[in-house]
Amino acid sequence: MGLKKADIILTDIDYILTMDKDLTEYKNADIVIKDGKIVDIGEGKKNEYYGKTIVCRNKIAIPGMINTHTHAAMTLLRGYGSDNPLKVWLEEYIWPAEGKFVSYEFVRDGTEIAVYEMLRTGTTTFVDMYFYENAVADVIKKVGIRGVLSTGILDFPTPGAKTPDEGIQKTVDFIEEYKNNAFVIPAIGPHAPYTCSPDTLKKAYSVAEKYDVVYHIHIAETEFEVKTVKEKYGKTPVEHLDSIGVLSERTLAAHMVYPSENEIDILSEKGVKVAHCPESNLKLASGIAPVPDMIQKGVTVGIGTDGTASNDNLDIIGEISTAAKLHKGFKKDPTVLNAKEALLMATRWGAQAIRMEDKIGTIEKGKFADIVLIDIKDPHLNPLYDPYTQIVYSSTGFDVDTVLVGGEIKVLNKEVIPLDKDYLLDKARYWKEKVDQIRK
Amino acid sequence: MGLKKADIILTDIDYILTMDKDLTEYKNADIVIKDGKIVDIGEGKKNEYYGKTIVCRNKIAIPGMINTHTHAAMTLLRGYGSDNPLKVWLEEYIWPAEGKFVSYEFVRDGTEIAVYEMLRTGTTTFVDMYFYENAVADVIKKVGIRGVLSTGILDFPTPGAKTPDEGIQKTVDFIEEYKNNAFVIPAIGPHAPYTCSPDTLKKAYSVAEKYDVVYHIHIAETEFEVKTVKEKYGKTPVEHLDSIGVLSERTLAAHMVYPSENEIDILSEKGVKVAHCPESNLKLASGIAPVPDMIQKGVTVGIGTDGTASNDNLDIIGEISTAAKLHKGFKKDPTVLNAKEALLMATRWGAQAIRMEDKIGTIEKGKFADIVLIDIKDPHLNPLYDPYTQIVYSSTGFDVDTVLVGGEIKVLNKEVIPLDKDYLLDKARYWKEKVDQIRK
Ligand SMILES: [Zn+2]
Ligand SMILES: [Zn+2]
Repeated sequence: MGLKKADIILTDIDYILTMDKDLTEYKNADIVIKDGKIVDIGEGKKNEYYGKTIVCRNKIAIPGMINTHTHAAMTLLRGYGSDNPLKVWLEEYIWPAEGKFVSYEFVRDGTEIAVYEMLRTGTTTFVDMYFYENAVADVIKKVGIRGVLSTGILDFPTPGAKTPDEGIQKTVDFIEEYKNNAFVIPAIGPHAPYTCSPDTLKKAYSVAEKYDVVYHIHIAETEFEVKTVKEKYGKTPVEHLDSIGVLSERTLAAHMVYPSENEIDILSEKGVKVAHCPESNLKLASGIAPVPDMIQKGVTVGIGTDGTASNDNLDIIGEISTAAKLHKGFKKDPTVLNAKEALLMATRWGAQAIRMEDKIGTIEKGKFADIVLIDIKDPHLNPLYDPYTQIVYSSTGFDVDTVLVGGEIKVLNKEVIPLDKDYLLDKARYWKEKVDQIRK
Repeated sequence: MGLKKADIILTDIDYILTMDKDLTEYKNADIVIKDGKIVDIGEGKKNEYYGKTIVCRNKIAIPGMINTHTHAAMTLLRGYGSDNPLKVWLEEYIWPAEGKFVSYEFVRDGTEIAVYEMLRTGTTTFVDMYFYENAVADVIKKVGIRGVLSTGILDFPTPGAKTPDEGIQKTVDFIEEYKNNAFVIPAIGPHAPYTCSPDTLKKAYSVAEKYDVVYHIHIAETEFEVKTVKEKYGKTPVEHLDSIGVLSERTLAAHMVYPSENEIDILSEKGVKVAHCPESNLKLASGIAPVPDMIQKGVTVGIGTDGTASNDNLDIIGEISTAAKLHKGFKKDPTVLNAKEALLMATRWGAQAIRMEDKIGTIEKGKFADIVLIDIKDPHLNPLYDPYTQIVYSSTGFDVDTVLVGGEIKVLNKEVIPLDKDYLLDKARYWKEKVDQIRK
């Protein structure tokens, strides 16, 4: 029998952590890729195929990771005004800078810097909410990462839209433009229950239903929000949103720091997904989300970095590491959110959170070849008793060596291929000089 | 006027964060080193000296970092049995492995792996408590890092001593052997108030007084410990230790998760130093130490990783990043433990914690040239508005590019010079195979 043709064969991988429903693992095995998809996995598969071969000795393969909540372009405000009280940070730093500079060019350049860091650290799909998402889409088309993109819709004027209706219409146009694109995946992004009226929230939801896209919204991030919504609507945020009918399996709720017991039940019943952003919640002093309780009640929880202005990085391994440790300490139980669950948040559960579990989130035949290889040939990752704990507790995103998106090599030997580092550093300097003018 | 002779001149450093008492900063400046010490700092200094020159463009200089609590050799048990209940982890994994294998060779090899990771990520001084500290000393003499070394003294037999008195005697011999050594700095290490009798604790303290060394002890790490000590002595741990007279400015208390208000006052009055180990405290579900309260009351707090079996890494930047975010979230105040304070924990405060503030912990004339250069030429660290926040919230230890200890280059271009990576990986494999036998 002759050899079968493949596009890429990843061979001799020390561990393949498929993250499939049985958490199937392979040792010293191969992954075969054709037409952007995984066509075979297992020991000795390299002997059945021919094609471009990459030897992956001393590496762990995991599914490409999914950042379920970010504002990518905010890299340009990374660290700007950090450590100030929230009001000062927002009113004297972030909002003036955004008000003055957010534009197609700002979003394009900031997103390129973000995408460089995301690919470098193993993220192959990110969920974005910002303005000028057409700029984000253009970066994606150039670089080849996946993005679930939503324009932030608010009841007050934004850099992209004077009214919420204009924001919704822009989203509809964007959905029409990109439907059936495997890389630019449109979503709708009403900002939050305290910044959008019930009318705006409902109009946005009808778009999500009509076009079957993710309804991406911030919910219950702060005590301030809970209090505001309660005062205005007589209900807590999840109850309020449930009462106006915008909670379903297509709702992706970022943060969810303050759901009540009853609200967790609602999330579970309605199939609402949560994007847990522990580092942002800690750094902005929002609080600690009851993630173990939500998981226990069957809520799907993905992981998000939030924007780099509030985190201040896009390293998903760092984020799941923080989550895994934080909830153990906060719950006083060292078995809570174990390494496998932490890695699930970044892979399969993340894919479920954006309803793409049939396409990404695991290493399985038929799925897109979004694959991350972690270099374990370094003393800080040895001895290696358990690949899951080693990734979650001992590695960082900078141990990622190779990244494929849709079977295309985006990172090799820790070098990001489709973006130029020096060009991005020039861009960062250019925007920093502009932003620095504001406070001078 | 002629040029003055220097050994090494670090030139064109983008930012020098001296971490001195005024937090003096320099931009585009130079550091001049002679006879292992810093002899000059400032703009244009490169024009006044001749000697080996290292151009440090696109780098931030900070003082060599100090890990104030670890068990270095436990790298060999990194990730072993992680995510289990504490009792299972200790009784079925850690203790059997330690009981069977801890020896001069185990400690030597484990410490070499630890020292590789510590240097790679910018630690130049570490505070150790384990067994066979003579093996740790031998590694230090070979590699050239600083270690404050204490043999763990317990009331039951340990790998190095059948009785606590034997442990104390070994420590005295060790102190005699290494007094006045700039790299091997002996200390005494009674394990904890629940594992050492008042008699052992007092005997150890008289050694600390006689030889003027650090009294390195675990205190108030878990609720179990607080309960045990209360039941046995009718006092909480700090009160108990105070009552037997072992608290002073030479006491270094690791963890300190559960001090009462009154106990924080005692720590402050007595000048006791704290080694805060947030990641270990979270991962082992011990709890969250009241660090902001302790700092506010004038207690000196350094940072520690604890052993890699409970963390599971030795990256000090990761540790201060966790601390800075954790306490903001837990205190619900985003101004708590800001980036400067977080970096102080890893530098000047760490030096104060081990009473070496006249020698290390800041970049100042006359201090040892223990210096870390962080590479900022990467998109994930740009734009750069504030070097402190960028280090604490956006970088990891793997952004460290160059490390000097006592004016000798130990890391250059991210390569650790005095240790061979492949040799260490072989050693890690060797011990893993042995340890894996236990549970087979
Ligand atoms: Zn957000
Ligand atoms: Zn310890």
